[in-house]
Amino acid sequence: MRLSPAAELAVRGVIVLAQHRGEGPLSLKAICEARGLPKQYLVKLFAMLAKADIVTAVRGKGGGFVMARDPADISILEIIEAVEGPVILNFCQHTPPRCRHEQCRLRAVWADLQQTFRRKLGAVSVADCVAAGPASPQPRRK
Amino acid sequence: MRLSPAAELAVRGVIVLAQHRGEGPLSLKAICEARGLPKQYLVKLFAMLAKADIVTAVRGKGGGFVMARDPADISILEIIEAVEGPVILNFCQHTPPRCRHEQCRLRAVWADLQQTFRRKLGAVSVADCVAAGPASPQPRRK
Repeated sequence: MRLSPAAELAVRGVIVLAQHRGEGPLSLKAICEARGLPKQYLVKLFAMLAKADIVTAVRGKGGGFVMARDPADISILEIIEAVEGPVILNFCQHTPPRCRHEQCRLRAVWADLQQTFRRKLGAVSVADCVAAGPASPQPRRK
Repeated sequence: MRLSPAAELAVRGVIVLAQHRGEGPLSLKAICEARGLPKQYLVKLFAMLAKADIVTAVRGKGGGFVMARDPADISILEIIEAVEGPVILNFCQHTPPRCRHEQCRLRAVWADLQQTFRRKLGAVSVADCVAAGPASPQPRRK
């Protein structure tokens, strides 16, 4: 039971980008170097994040990525779901459920956990993470 | 972000076994048939569950598995951790954390989620799941 590496990396990459907001496009290389992230993997993840309108690719010389929206309006849940798809904690929570035992107490427990998970991660914005302290070695000072 | 297939299968297997408690050893074949579980995978999982003192292997003719303890004293969390190891939801929650940004707001959010997760799944016993309704096509009627 753990967050996928894809989601883990995507969250970190977006936080770095948000920390450098207003400084123009940031290359993937710079994003990766800031937190020691694997570039090859991030290329694919940032394409997914662009598709979800979380980041925007800027082409050409000096290009890279910028935030597509205000970091205060993007939740950590949104980033996770952009690369993992909808959070579905276990078999019971599929629609329809992949288990036909409707009275099983576990189904309610998992439904509750899934709701808690989505609520708590949906309540934390990228801006919260930027404001809380350094997430890269060279954060933008306000 | 989802429960591993190993944990998902182990939980189901143990619930089936608990439903047939008092009927003597249940073969892995019977456990698997009761819920359409893949036997090859369950062999390994039940060895891990035996090591964690959740089930006991009974050798010889008519052998199989029995519950090692009262299902009321075994939580769903215990089963999950027996096959997955300790629940660690993401990088931040390792000891020591695999991220050096101590002030990052995310670390507290993940710590909270991990605590909630362990608390809620630790509060549901195998007996709760057996009592709540059928989890196999041929449950033991009380």
